[in-house]
Amino acid sequence: MNIISGGVTAAKGFKASGVHCGIRKNKLKKDLALIYSETKANVAAVYTTNAVKGAPLTVTKNHIADGYASAIICNSGNANTCNANGIEIAEQMSALLGDALKIDPCDVVVASTGVIGQPLDIEPIKNGIPSLVESLDENGGLSAAEGIMTTDTKAKEVAVEFEVGGKVCKIGGIAKGSGMIHPNMATMLVFITTDCNISSQMLQKALSSDIQSTFNMVSIDGDTSTNDMVCVLANGMAGNEEITEDNDDFKTFMKTLNTVNINLCRKIAGDGEGATKLLECKVSGAQSDEIAKTVAKSVICSSLTKAAMFGADANWGRVLCAIGYSKAPVDVNKIDVSFKSAKGEIPVCKNGAGIEFSEEKAKEILLEEVIEILIDLNSGDCSSTAWGCDLTYEYVKINGDYRT
Amino acid sequence: MNIISGGVTAAKGFKASGVHCGIRKNKLKKDLALIYSETKANVAAVYTTNAVKGAPLTVTKNHIADGYASAIICNSGNANTCNANGIEIAEQMSALLGDALKIDPCDVVVASTGVIGQPLDIEPIKNGIPSLVESLDENGGLSAAEGIMTTDTKAKEVAVEFEVGGKVCKIGGIAKGSGMIHPNMATMLVFITTDCNISSQMLQKALSSDIQSTFNMVSIDGDTSTNDMVCVLANGMAGNEEITEDNDDFKTFMKTLNTVNINLCRKIAGDGEGATKLLECKVSGAQSDEIAKTVAKSVICSSLTKAAMFGADANWGRVLCAIGYSKAPVDVNKIDVSFKSAKGEIPVCKNGAGIEFSEEKAKEILLEEVIEILIDLNSGDCSSTAWGCDLTYEYVKINGDYRT
Repeated sequence: MNIISGGVTAAKGFKASGVHCGIRKNKLKKDLALIYSETKANVAAVYTTNAVKGAPLTVTKNHIADGYASAIICNSGNANTCNANGIEIAEQMSALLGDALKIDPCDVVVASTGVIGQPLDIEPIKNGIPSLVESLDENGGLSAAEGIMTTDTKAKEVAVEFEVGGKVCKIGGIAKGSGMIHPNMATMLVFITTDCNISSQMLQKALSSDIQSTFNMVSIDGDTSTNDMVCVLANGMAGNEEITEDNDDFKTFMKTLNTVNINLCRKIAGDGEGATKLLECKVSGAQSDEIAKTVAKSVICSSLTKAAMFGADANWGRVLCAIGYSKAPVDVNKIDVSFKSAKGEIPVCKNGAGIEFSEEKAKEILLEEVIEILIDLNSGDCSSTAWGCDLTYEYVKINGDYRT
Repeated sequence: MNIISGGVTAAKGFKASGVHCGIRKNKLKKDLALIYSETKANVAAVYTTNAVKGAPLTVTKNHIADGYASAIICNSGNANTCNANGIEIAEQMSALLGDALKIDPCDVVVASTGVIGQPLDIEPIKNGIPSLVESLDENGGLSAAEGIMTTDTKAKEVAVEFEVGGKVCKIGGIAKGSGMIHPNMATMLVFITTDCNISSQMLQKALSSDIQSTFNMVSIDGDTSTNDMVCVLANGMAGNEEITEDNDDFKTFMKTLNTVNINLCRKIAGDGEGATKLLECKVSGAQSDEIAKTVAKSVICSSLTKAAMFGADANWGRVLCAIGYSKAPVDVNKIDVSFKSAKGEIPVCKNGAGIEFSEEKAKEILLEEVIEILIDLNSGDCSSTAWGCDLTYEYVKINGDYRT
């Protein structure tokens, strides 16, 4: 398995594009993205668990109920959520794209991201689709990644090459999401393409399982969005024998998908709204996976821990506090904590109590951009990782005035 | 029932004091507080649900198991939590105070607040106790309120006068807490005194019940502290017949306690770390109290809603989003939302969808210091209120560098 350059157009038979159509005021920002597979692809998706669901999610769910899709269209700048005519607009987006691509509108995956509760005008989308389709390109992955950005500061893409049954396959993905992100099912927009031949059933199985330890373990701010989804298209053009059961090929696919997803998780967390640091909370020595996950999530979600990391302050008491209120059954007196970065590792808590450490060394470690919070529960063999970011002035600024 | 001036020394037979003993570096900040009842008082208390518990809580729990206490000692600047010798130190604090006041150390309630995981030196406390006891005063309530402050910007106290069985009684309270506060049992330090004659059993019943709709509905930042407690002393000096059952007198007491607690809740939330606004989320039309509470808490805890309120941005989509991920069973299509302050009220969402409103008027309303977020679920008769504050640059600043 190798990480290669590219994103959703790395796999055979996929083209993509991104344009500015006018939903966003800033003409320099793309606001409409398209991913297209030359042949009808098998599809799998997971959606937000928020009871308030974006209209596009409902429409997509219906469209891909048969297991197939040919294209993904996504606009940024408006979530098309809590609008009286949301479903209608999402269906219109599909119909217009279907017309332009000469495909069944029911093979369109539709997604939206941006402000909630403002009517989405179909006009700019209608006007933008011709140039969106025209600019479809085998190297268009980055354009599509740009088209789905909102407060993201970086386009996020990754591609991986692997082998199944002697055939070279690729999986590539793009992601957006830096605010309103919290571990609860699909927590952002992620579009993944692969030329690996795999049934939609096994694709769904792989995705639904993998997100438990990847996207569901990311938190930027504890707010679970109304619109987020992860969607995978598999067009089978790599030519391997179709994966239809839980065999070695499936395990290889799972492993590669996991690599893609972890890569995107780290990119999403590191580019959290206002973030200056990527935080990785690695819990080990847990009695069960569930305990490890609960502890890791609780720490990564703690506002106080996040603010301390922003200040490069080795205030490990906040880590202990977050473990304590996580409700996970842990023996507090066995917990060890240390902080780690490119500058080294420093233990700060042993058996649930503070130990002497060099504040100077801790500061040096915490001033780095990628910080690992290592927690050993010393009670078992299970482990888990959660991804997040620091809480900064900039987060407050972005969200104090998001709509204007 | 009348709100009167004063705090924990408003009720008969209570004295209090606060001094600087040297736990905090800043000599202008008091760091040791004492509340003392001339006669042994009935006592009730509730404690944090955090699995990591401050040593003083464990000690207090043992001391008041018999239902009696005579004094409360509390230091700020150090939480005495996650320290190997925490219990020992808390017992020493009790013993030293017992000696000085000539009372049984087991009648001492001991509390600490401040940084977690740093050994608490007994020396400054030992040296401070003589002057603390010497300065005990019938007007010392405010000094005690100052002695328990950490990042609080204002001392918080309230007193209420009421009548039971023809006797004038008083309840007074002080509170601290502006960070690490989240609805989950006792969420800060609150000390309440009353001269009302009420058995410790009924006192505990009143307190345990009341906190469900008061302190447990406050959230500053979603972090449940390790050290918080609410403790009530009732010395019976008002001379009313002892309240020993759920009669009219008890109802009067409950109602008065509720007034005291709501007053302190609003003071705590409005003085949240870095806060510029007090937020009150009032949910009505719910099918059950539980649903109303879940919705109110979810909204008051949403970082995105809190940041929007800081920016006086009427971004009601974030309110809907927070209702959606609360997991409360609500019909999204029935939800109405409006914002209200001293400048008026403005509806922004009707039946789960946006309605037109004047952004200018909304801004004017949201620029006030007390904002009500009104949510009508239009599905029943139950209601609930939660208290919180906005998320600001200052919160990040305070918590990015708390220890130094």
